[in-house]
Amino acid sequence: MAHDFDPGPIAEPFLTLARDYPGAETYPADAFRVEWGPIFHRGRLDGSARVLVIGQDPAASEDITRRILVGAAGHRTQGFLAKLGIDHSYVMINTFLYSVYGQQGGEQHKNDAAIIAYRNSWLAALTEPAQLDAVIALGQLADDTWNKFKTQTEPGIASLPYAHITHPTQPESSSGGDPQKLAQAVTAMLTNWNTALQQLHPLIAHPDVPGPLTLYGEAFAPGDLAEIPEADLPPGLPDWMRSPVAWAQRTGTTATEKRATITITIPSSA
Amino acid sequence: MAHDFDPGPIAEPFLTLARDYPGAETYPADAFRVEWGPIFHRGRLDGSARVLVIGQDPAASEDITRRILVGAAGHRTQGFLAKLGIDHSYVMINTFLYSVYGQQGGEQHKNDAAIIAYRNSWLAALTEPAQLDAVIALGQLADDTWNKFKTQTEPGIASLPYAHITHPTQPESSSGGDPQKLAQAVTAMLTNWNTALQQLHPLIAHPDVPGPLTLYGEAFAPGDLAEIPEADLPPGLPDWMRSPVAWAQRTGTTATEKRATITITIPSSA
Repeated sequence: MAHDFDPGPIAEPFLTLARDYPGAETYPADAFRVEWGPIFHRGRLDGSARVLVIGQDPAASEDITRRILVGAAGHRTQGFLAKLGIDHSYVMINTFLYSVYGQQGGEQHKNDAAIIAYRNSWLAALTEPAQLDAVIALGQLADDTWNKFKTQTEPGIASLPYAHITHPTQPESSSGGDPQKLAQAVTAMLTNWNTALQQLHPLIAHPDVPGPLTLYGEAFAPGDLAEIPEADLPPGLPDWMRSPVAWAQRTGTTATEKRATITITIPSSA
Repeated sequence: MAHDFDPGPIAEPFLTLARDYPGAETYPADAFRVEWGPIFHRGRLDGSARVLVIGQDPAASEDITRRILVGAAGHRTQGFLAKLGIDHSYVMINTFLYSVYGQQGGEQHKNDAAIIAYRNSWLAALTEPAQLDAVIALGQLADDTWNKFKTQTEPGIASLPYAHITHPTQPESSSGGDPQKLAQAVTAMLTNWNTALQQLHPLIAHPDVPGPLTLYGEAFAPGDLAEIPEADLPPGLPDWMRSPVAWAQRTGTTATEKRATITITIPSSA
């Protein structure tokens, strides 16, 4: 049985970008989990991407898969792309190379010149071939990322169809464990996402799977989440690493211990 | 600062071998930890390897780095190669793609035709360009691996300089936590390794770093272990993943839990 895999940043300019990346001199360790290493992307780096997705920062499971947006946020994003008819012609990068530590880590460093410069090199490399139909930003920091890049790129790229949508796990992070608030936040997010879908769907000139637009209801329906394709992960990774179940947790009894520890548990459904 | 990385199995025949690998139909789950996925190799897949190392099966940390021989056994092996003047022109594969589960898992399945057939495809791909100066087997199962391959390859490859040496963590596994037994087993291993070094050193026609042979003493000296090169791991992996300190542990209170769990703890020295 053939298992597709993602070769990663093996061709220029990505090869050099994945070799020469900023460390703790650029991403201060009090605001970013630099000790887990940078995580660069997910998806196509061969110029075949039609949609560029900008996320925020990597989650614990992504420290293991070394690809971004593979967990809960990734499955929701993958489902959003599927509604646009895109099932493989995408590429995703994050606002931050490293996982944000603490509540304000991201906001505090969103204007740091060296963070922006390196990220803009990725954005230039991903947009210059100019085959993109659309750009999607997940959340406010990603929106800020695109806005900053727009000021320094050419007009044809700056004017690409673009949607800033609510971050896919904003409902969880805003509802503090309250199920009713969570349901309301999901509904609000899906309303926001539906607006973006209606805007973008007609503009996707090269869908992988052409078809009519199906909007979200008030909650996620089973078909609204999409699998992370095996072809997006490095060779040999087990299937459960693409599961929406949270299989990687930062564990420990102190903050220091928790920063230094990740416990991986294979989901019992696997 | 440039961080070299290993692109992995991106060119044929390795691309296809890393796509079409055997699973639980070939590696029974009662004898192998198939649930963590296959781990293929470490080192050069571009034909530049001068020494082929055959190991046994991946350890817990290697489930994370997705490259073999990066832990304690890897550092000892890397030091052995350094004594032969080889610091990057090597390639390593294991006897088994998956971690052996239980004491007898390896012995029981060493004659399984499908395991041998797939492994021989790797060995053929690694030896056919015929630029190797030597082959080294770590432990008895690896020795069996090379002997089985020899029967079906051409005479020029079957007669390559070859050494079967004691497995680098045999002292730990044979001494049951007794420090005196451990020291004795290390001495015995290093005597065995010295014999192999004296045999192989003159036959390494293309050392990376030419120089005289320095044998081991009765115990490992600091210079006898060598770092795992950054260029052997996938892009972006943090330095401590190349540490000889055991940073990945199978944890849990039951056998089932322990099979399903790996806890990663960044070494405090990192």
